[in-house]
Amino acid sequence: MAVRKRRVAVLSPVAWRTPPQHYGAWETVASNISEGLVARGWDVTLFATANSLTAAHLHAVVDKGYEEDRSVDPKVAEYLHISEAFEHAGEFDLIHSHYDFMALAFSRLVRTPVLTTVHGFSSPQIMPAYEKYRDGYFVSVSDSDRAPRLNYLATVYNGIDMSLYPFQPTTIGDSLVFLGRIHPDKGVHLAIEVARKSGRSLIIAGILQDLSYFEDQIKPHIDGFKISYVGPVNVAEKNALFAQASALLHMNTIPERFGLVLAEANCAGVPVIAMDLGSCREVIEDGQTGFLVNNVEEAAAALGRLPQIDRRACRKRVSDRFSISTMVQAYERVYATIFALEEK
Amino acid sequence: MAVRKRRVAVLSPVAWRTPPQHYGAWETVASNISEGLVARGWDVTLFATANSLTAAHLHAVVDKGYEEDRSVDPKVAEYLHISEAFEHAGEFDLIHSHYDFMALAFSRLVRTPVLTTVHGFSSPQIMPAYEKYRDGYFVSVSDSDRAPRLNYLATVYNGIDMSLYPFQPTTIGDSLVFLGRIHPDKGVHLAIEVARKSGRSLIIAGILQDLSYFEDQIKPHIDGFKISYVGPVNVAEKNALFAQASALLHMNTIPERFGLVLAEANCAGVPVIAMDLGSCREVIEDGQTGFLVNNVEEAAAALGRLPQIDRRACRKRVSDRFSISTMVQAYERVYATIFALEEK
Repeated sequence: MAVRKRRVAVLSPVAWRTPPQHYGAWETVASNISEGLVARGWDVTLFATANSLTAAHLHAVVDKGYEEDRSVDPKVAEYLHISEAFEHAGEFDLIHSHYDFMALAFSRLVRTPVLTTVHGFSSPQIMPAYEKYRDGYFVSVSDSDRAPRLNYLATVYNGIDMSLYPFQPTTIGDSLVFLGRIHPDKGVHLAIEVARKSGRSLIIAGILQDLSYFEDQIKPHIDGFKISYVGPVNVAEKNALFAQASALLHMNTIPERFGLVLAEANCAGVPVIAMDLGSCREVIEDGQTGFLVNNVEEAAAALGRLPQIDRRACRKRVSDRFSISTMVQAYERVYATIFALEEK
Repeated sequence: MAVRKRRVAVLSPVAWRTPPQHYGAWETVASNISEGLVARGWDVTLFATANSLTAAHLHAVVDKGYEEDRSVDPKVAEYLHISEAFEHAGEFDLIHSHYDFMALAFSRLVRTPVLTTVHGFSSPQIMPAYEKYRDGYFVSVSDSDRAPRLNYLATVYNGIDMSLYPFQPTTIGDSLVFLGRIHPDKGVHLAIEVARKSGRSLIIAGILQDLSYFEDQIKPHIDGFKISYVGPVNVAEKNALFAQASALLHMNTIPERFGLVLAEANCAGVPVIAMDLGSCREVIEDGQTGFLVNNVEEAAAALGRLPQIDRRACRKRVSDRFSISTMVQAYERVYATIFALEEK
């Protein structure tokens, strides 16, 4: 029996390009899903900014990410982008949304089922929107980042493109590396404390999201020698940082939702020392691919145990659990569940 | 032949209560339309905050205006409120939206026709949204506030509830009055200049929208005697101000979109001196209900000609052109046009 190819719309955010050039975790995942689905033979339309790169059909009404083009009003871009996807709902068997509660608001106006990957609940104030649409279809990106009462079909861990982060069997340096938004949530100040306590050097990379935090708590420690800040980094620059890293330090102060950068570091063979908050214990296997810690002292102590970590084990865990193909196959199972439910 | 009563949904903003207690021009007009339609026998459902007051059916998912309740995220409130109305589209023959481009984004997902009253284009950045949906149904609130290429069915001037602003045949004071948002667009600083030049006292009332403007350009002039600021005012307080007013001074620095307060002042019999920008010359009949001016000097000179203005003529113009019943009858003609077009 010939089965018609299913058509999936992937709705990516338009804050950044898909995939993003520097920061943009949601766009990264939406990209990986789209490319992974195409590679496995799906008919995929990616709704993203016009400068996005994809093997899927690209459907765009916003030229550039509103974070990259200040002439664009984010609210206008979002409304135009999301409504465009829903106006074309009839062309798809499924809309896979990465657009938070805003896309939910359109979901009951179309017959096409909508699957929402919840990349994070940004504030308690958005919960009424999830509450209203809780009988939709949801995927969490970690078991820890779940809201009560939502109709979750599965947890699907984010998958990364492993070819982007080649295995580095040894490190050419002995630095600690912090990679992420410069924001109190990411505990950059705690990473600095760990570096000072241990006498190691720390390289900090990422976008400046909280400028006053940077000015007050980070910048005074930057000496360009023991503590340095290199700004946002692209993939090649990340790999150069991984080459110098004895460990990635991730001292998050709030529960991590997934922690893409932890998987990226492990992918390159770099062990991760992460706070045991939120999803970190789902991504990192304590004592195998890094160490889970509860404070600065434990993090500093863990540095001494880094030689116990087999860098190959780090890579293997990513290959087993956080690869694009693992993720896409998991989503295929979710899609099949939805199609079965919809055909009832 | 029995004709089924038409059902109209009026979609009001949820920034403030409908009608608002102080400031909130869009909510005021949405309220006046709803109440006017009910009075003329229409089946009206008003989508507004839950604390709104109406003779129509009230449908609410947001408790209070997000400007009045800081625990509410405006974006969440807007998405939930607008989507709720469109999810109920099938219950209505027409959705009359006062919700700017955001409601347009939902308009193609329902069969019910959507009429948008454009209360103003808040920035050039929102024009792409109007451009996309330009073949919808639009009403402008003045001939001057029109964007090119939109499918306008009519200009319908805003109507005010004349019973709220009783005619005051004479003034008990000789003050000038400014009523409006404290914002450079409204030219409060120019009103102060006119008062100083003419030696008249000026009472300023309205919400502080631009705090640094107030601190820098308004507050230094306030002496509580010649120049005073009384904060936001409700209807009763407006009438008390009108009672003391020899004229309303409206020295707007950008084109006025409609200028509800000009009609309110005229309704009470108070002449208006307004900048000849935007809709002011549609609301004020120069030399009959006030004076149109081009600068501070002309405004100061016009004060000397105030005795020429017949306060009864001010009220009559409002009664003829800016009453609720005039407005509602104009909208009834617009609705009839839409129903005829839709039935083709």
